[in-house]
Amino acid sequence: MATTQQMLDAYPGDLGIDQTLLAACIDACLDCAQACTACADACLSEEMVDQLRSCIRTDLDCADICAVTGRVLSRHTGYDANLTRAVLEACRTACRSCGDECAQHAEMHDHCRICADACRACEQACADLLTSLG
Amino acid sequence: MATTQQMLDAYPGDLGIDQTLLAACIDACLDCAQACTACADACLSEEMVDQLRSCIRTDLDCADICAVTGRVLSRHTGYDANLTRAVLEACRTACRSCGDECAQHAEMHDHCRICADACRACEQACADLLTSLG
Amino acid sequence: MATTQQMLDAYPGDLGIDQTLLAACIDACLDCAQACTACADACLSEEMVDQLRSCIRTDLDCADICAVTGRVLSRHTGYDANLTRAVLEACRTACRSCGDECAQHAEMHDHCRICADACRACEQACADLLTSLG
Amino acid sequence: MATTQQMLDAYPGDLGIDQTLLAACIDACLDCAQACTACADACLSEEMVDQLRSCIRTDLDCADICAVTGRVLSRHTGYDANLTRAVLEACRTACRSCGDECAQHAEMHDHCRICADACRACEQACADLLTSLG
Repeated sequence: MATTQQMLDAYPGDLGIDQTLLAACIDACLDCAQACTACADACLSEEMVDQLRSCIRTDLDCADICAVTGRVLSRHTGYDANLTRAVLEACRTACRSCGDECAQHAEMHDHCRICADACRACEQACADLLTSLG
Repeated sequence: MATTQQMLDAYPGDLGIDQTLLAACIDACLDCAQACTACADACLSEEMVDQLRSCIRTDLDCADICAVTGRVLSRHTGYDANLTRAVLEACRTACRSCGDECAQHAEMHDHCRICADACRACEQACADLLTSLG
Repeated sequence: MATTQQMLDAYPGDLGIDQTLLAACIDACLDCAQACTACADACLSEEMVDQLRSCIRTDLDCADICAVTGRVLSRHTGYDANLTRAVLEACRTACRSCGDECAQHAEMHDHCRICADACRACEQACADLLTSLG
Repeated sequence: MATTQQMLDAYPGDLGIDQTLLAACIDACLDCAQACTACADACLSEEMVDQLRSCIRTDLDCADICAVTGRVLSRHTGYDANLTRAVLEACRTACRSCGDECAQHAEMHDHCRICADACRACEQACADLLTSLG
């Protein structure tokens, strides 16, 4: 999604945050939200759905939290570092839980493998942005 | 919204959390999300919109975070206390920021006064639920 | 949620829409979104989860669409009747699908019965608001 | 977002829909939702914010509707063509409104120009998917 970086470049004013890390984190959040939504639905279509209840649940939570983190970060994030930090912490926690859960099914279900990768990438992007906030 | 409590009563299994505090927190989140969405839009309609930029921004962030907190809490929250806690912390932080901002305009704008009240109530409901999680 | 009506009363300007029907529809949307989110999760906890796949899916779709309809309606809806109408049509369609699906499981699962009622109420509230828009 | 296509390829079962158009539409929805969220915030930072009220409003509505359309399409969309169609119609309507509004400010504000492009692309992707649904 090259649009994210273009929109940051077009912002009227200083965002008070590392723009490269910010764009990477927004894109990782949206990517992970999509993967988690699709993974929950793919799990629902598996024959062994009764063994995937926790996976569906953590997928849905992670999808919601990543989507909202991507939205909050798409606003003028410099204004309230406490809020940005709290949202990033929640997103990192959700991605770690969901990545761990999906990784357990990665060998059996390709959608869980792809989703686990998206969760790891988003967890790292949140961690990097948190570090840059100091 | 009496439905929230009814749905908790109909849950097949133990939620592992104080149900009265949980229902109160879900309802406070949804109430606050609505108030913040409406307050942002009301601010946009004010003549002095240029003095309400921060208020609109924090309203939008708070609306997003409260809505997603209400969703996460509406799922089987017992399964991952770390995630529940991180989301509640983010929501409490967002409500405090938004409540503080709206309170500054409460005398001039009724929508800010009502929204500040909704933020305070949601901040408290999150704090109460966090305490009960130990 | 008495807050919805309070926020409408505090709006600076004419909303160009029947406020009583609008408040009822916003509240019905938020109520239905919560019920559907909770019903999807309750279905996931049922032993017979493999027979509830469609119900979970339609619950999740209906939750998403009701939530966003509640948000769009919480803004200055008069400005673009085409958009308001299209969103209400989508919401009415989602509520009908989900209400029909949940009604099939209402005798066996209390959460489906309560959710079906919330869907019917929201479908009706959308229909009433659509009629008033002319 | 190559992940979207990967997740579709990993889906266990037939989606009953053109997968290339579906992936393109999901990605266009998420891209447009991000652009609209960022454009609303950029508009809020402009000196002439009082002339951008409608643009902010339509940005926020379009962001919400595109995000939810991307989510609904990320689920097993074949199951209920009526719902898919109604959501795509709402999304197309929102993108047309927002694209028209942003296009009016495109020469003055780069963020409106980029956002208008994202809206046009999403409107087209929704139209293409609707046509394929018959």
